Amino acid sequence: MALKSFIEVHSDSHFPIQNLPFGVFKPLPTSPPRPGVAIGDYVLDLSQIALAGLFNGPALNGTDCFLQPNLNKFLSLGRPAWKEARATLQKLLSSTEPTLRDNADLREKSLVPMSKVEMVLPVVIGDYTDFFSSIYHTKNCGIIFRGPQTPIRDNWFQLPVAYHGRASSIIVSGTDVVRPRGQSAPTGSPPVQFGPSKKLDFELEMAVVVGPGNELGKPIDIKEAADHIFGLVLMNDWSARDIQAWESFPLGPFLGKSFGSTISPWIVTLDALEPFACDAPKQDPKPLPYLTEKISKNYDVSLEVRIKPVGEQDSHVVSRSNLKHLYWTLTQQLAHHTVNGCNLRPGDLLGTGTISGPVWLQSFPTFLGSCLKLILLYHVVLNRNRILLDAC
Amino acid sequence: MALKSFIEVHSDSHFPIQNLPFGVFKPLPTSPPRPGVAIGDYVLDLSQIALAGLFNGPALNGTDCFLQPNLNKFLSLGRPAWKEARATLQKLLSSTEPTLRDNADLREKSLVPMSKVEMVLPVVIGDYTDFFSSIYHTKNCGIIFRGPQTPIRDNWFQLPVAYHGRASSIIVSGTDVVRPRGQSAPTGSPPVQFGPSKKLDFELEMAVVVGPGNELGKPIDIKEAADHIFGLVLMNDWSARDIQAWESFPLGPFLGKSFGSTISPWIVTLDALEPFACDAPKQDPKPLPYLTEKISKNYDVSLEVRIKPVGEQDSHVVSRSNLKHLYWTLTQQLAHHTVNGCNLRPGDLLGTGTISGPVWLQSFPTFLGSCLKLILLYHVVLNRNRILLDAC
Ligand SMILES: [Ca+2]
Ligand SMILES: [Ca+2]
Ligand SMILES: [Mg+2]
Ligand SMILES: [Mg+2]
Ligand code: NI
Repeated sequence: MALKSFIEVHSDSHFPIQNLPFGVFKPLPTSPPRPGVAIGDYVLDLSQIALAGLFNGPALNGTDCFLQPNLNKFLSLGRPAWKEARATLQKLLSSTEPTLRDNADLREKSLVPMSKVEMVLPVVIGDYTDFFSSIYHTKNCGIIFRGPQTPIRDNWFQLPVAYHGRASSIIVSGTDVVRPRGQSAPTGSPPVQFGPSKKLDFELEMAVVVGPGNELGKPIDIKEAADHIFGLVLMNDWSARDIQAWESFPLGPFLGKSFGSTISPWIVTLDALEPFACDAPKQDPKPLPYLTEKISKNYDVSLEVRIKPVGEQDSHVVSRSNLKHLYWTLTQQLAHHTVNGCNLRPGDLLGTGTISGPVWLQSFPTFLGSCLKLILLYHVVLNRNRILLDAC
Repeated sequence: MALKSFIEVHSDSHFPIQNLPFGVFKPLPTSPPRPGVAIGDYVLDLSQIALAGLFNGPALNGTDCFLQPNLNKFLSLGRPAWKEARATLQKLLSSTEPTLRDNADLREKSLVPMSKVEMVLPVVIGDYTDFFSSIYHTKNCGIIFRGPQTPIRDNWFQLPVAYHGRASSIIVSGTDVVRPRGQSAPTGSPPVQFGPSKKLDFELEMAVVVGPGNELGKPIDIKEAADHIFGLVLMNDWSARDIQAWESFPLGPFLGKSFGSTISPWIVTLDALEPFACDAPKQDPKPLPYLTEKISKNYDVSLEVRIKPVGEQDSHVVSRSNLKHLYWTLTQQLAHHTVNGCNLRPGDLLGTGTISGPVWLQSFPTFLGSCLKLILLYHVVLNRNRILLDAC
C-alpha cells in the first residue's frame, strides 16, 4: 500500500507525502523566513521540527541548518543529510506515526496553512547558468537564424552549450515583473528604437539547485555529478527578444534576459523525482569520456504553460512539453560546467534551457489587444508565475 | 604644499596619502579578515580606527561597517560615507595631525607592515559583468573574425556590449590559477580535442566596484551613475582562447572564461582618481538620451603587462595601454546595465573589457619552450598577479 500522511491530501494535490519539496517561507509577513516542506494544503515548519529535536539521525543531529533564512547550509551538507531529512519527514508525516500526529501543540506550531504563508526565494543564488539543452528548441532557433539546412552547429552535439545569467534578478514565483525598456533595431541595423520591449517572451525551463559543489580548480567527475544535485525548480527565463536580438552579437544575451527570471518557491528533490526517471535520448556522436555516463537518465515530468489575460476567467494553454526531451542530461551539464575547474557553490542554479519552442506574445494578438495591463499566468506542474506588463 | 603623511612614503610608492585605496586583509594567517587602507609600506587597520571611535562624522558615527569581513556594508552606505571616510583617514594620517601620529599604542595596533599581511577578496561579489568597451580591442577582434572591411558591427557604436561572467571564480591577486582543461576544435569543426588549454591568454582590464545599486525594475539615471561607483580594481580576465572559440556560438563565452578572473586586492576610489580625470573620446553616432552625459569623463591611468617566465630574473613588457582609451565611459556602462530594470548590488563588479589588444601566450614561444612550469607575472600600476600553468 502506498505511503499515506495523517494530513489529508487531495488526490489532485501536487504535494503528497511522496513529494515533500523544500522551500523557505514566512508564516506571517513580519516573521523571519525559515525552511519548510509542502504537504497537502500545509507547510511544515522545519525550524519547529528542528527545535523539537526530531532531526536526530547521524547526519543532522545538532545542526542549525533548519534555523537559517535559506536552504544553503542544508544544501552544503550533501546527499546523506538530504536522504536523512526526507526519511525523517516521511516518517513524521505518515499516518502510522504518532509523534507529530498525536501532539496537538507541535502540530499547532509546525503546520501552517499554505494559503496563509508568504514564500520567498529558497536559496541565496551565487551564480546562475542557463544551458541550451533541448534539441527541439535548438532546432527551432537554428531554423530562424540559420535556415533549415544546418539549423544546429557542430559544437552543440559535442558539448552542452550554456551562458552565464544574472543572479541578482532571480525572483520567486508571484513577484511582479516590470516590462523592460531597451534598445532594439527591427531591421537589424540603425536607426535604433528605445522603449518598452515589444517582444516579451517566456522560456519554460527547469533548473538544478546545486548541492555541495567543488573547489576552484577541481572538476567534478561525471560519476559524482548526481551527488551535487539537490533538486529542481521550475523556471521562467523571461526574455525580451527585440532587446536580445540587437545586443547579442558577439557576446551573447545580456539585458534581454537580466530584467528578471522567475523560479518556483518549491525545490523538488532528486530523490522525489527518482520514480519518474527514464532513459535520456541516445547521443550521436558519442560524447567525450568526461561526458560519458553508464546510465544516461532524464525525468518524465510533463510541463504546461498557460496564459491568462487581464479580466478573463480562463487561462489558455500555449505550450506543452516534457523534461524528458533534454538532449544533454542534468549530470552532463554539471560535469561540463566544472571540467575547466570552475567552482560551483551550494545554491547555484543551472537552467536546463527552454524545454519547448518559444512562443512570442505577439503571436497572441487577441490577448494583447489594446490593453494597458496584461497578466500572464504561467501555470506549470507545481506552481504559478505572473507578469505585469506596465504598458503595452 | 602637497598633503604629506607622518608615515614615510617612498617617492615610487603606489600608496601615498593621496591614494588610500581600500582592501580587506588578515594581519596574521589566523586573524579574521578586516578592512584596511594602504599607506606607504603599511596597511591601516580600519577596525582598530573604528574601535577607537575615530570615525565620528555624521555618516559613519556608530556604524559597524569596518567591523565586517568585507567592504559590502561600507559600499552600501554611498558617497557621503565614502567621502567622510576618506577625509577622516587623510586627516588622521597627515603629518600635522597628532591623534594617531603621537599615540604609540594605537599606531602599534592599527599599522601593520604590508609585507606581513595576507590580502583577501575585498568584497563579496554577487554578480560580475564584463563589458567590451575599448575600440582598439574591438577592432582587433573584429579584424580577426570579420575581416578588415567591417571589423565592428553597428550595435557596438549604439550600446556598451557586455556579457555576464562567473562570480564564484573571481580570485584575489596572488592566487594560483589552474590551467583549464576543455574541448577545442582547431579547424572549427569536429574532430574535437580535449586537454589543457593551449591558448591561455590574459585580458588587461579594470573593473568598477559598485556602491549602493538599485532595486529591481528601477533603472539608475545616467546623471546619478557616478554615485554608484565606489572605485576601480585591476582585473586580469584570464581567457582560454581555444576553449572559447569552440564553445561560444551562439551564446557567448563560458568555460573559456570561468576558470578564474583575478582582481587586485586594492580598490582605488573614484575620489582618488579624480585628479586623473580626462575627456572621453567623442562618440559618433551620438548616443541615445539614456546614455547621454553632459561631461563624458575617462581617467588617465597608464597600464602595463609584464610576463616573467620561471627561472628568469626579469619580466618582459608585453602590453601597454591606458584606461583613457575606453569608448564607453564607466557611467555609461552602469546606466546601460540598469536601463532594463536589472538590479545592481553593493560589491558587484563591472569589467571594462580588455583595454589593450590581446597577446596570446603562443606569441611567446621562447617563454613557453619545453617548460613544465611557467609563471606569468602580470604587473600593472598598482599590483601583481601570478599564474601557475601546471603543464604545457
Ligand atoms: Ca530572464
Ligand atoms: Ca576570466
Ligand atoms: Mg533560457
Ligand atoms: Mg574580458
Ligand atoms: Ni488585453
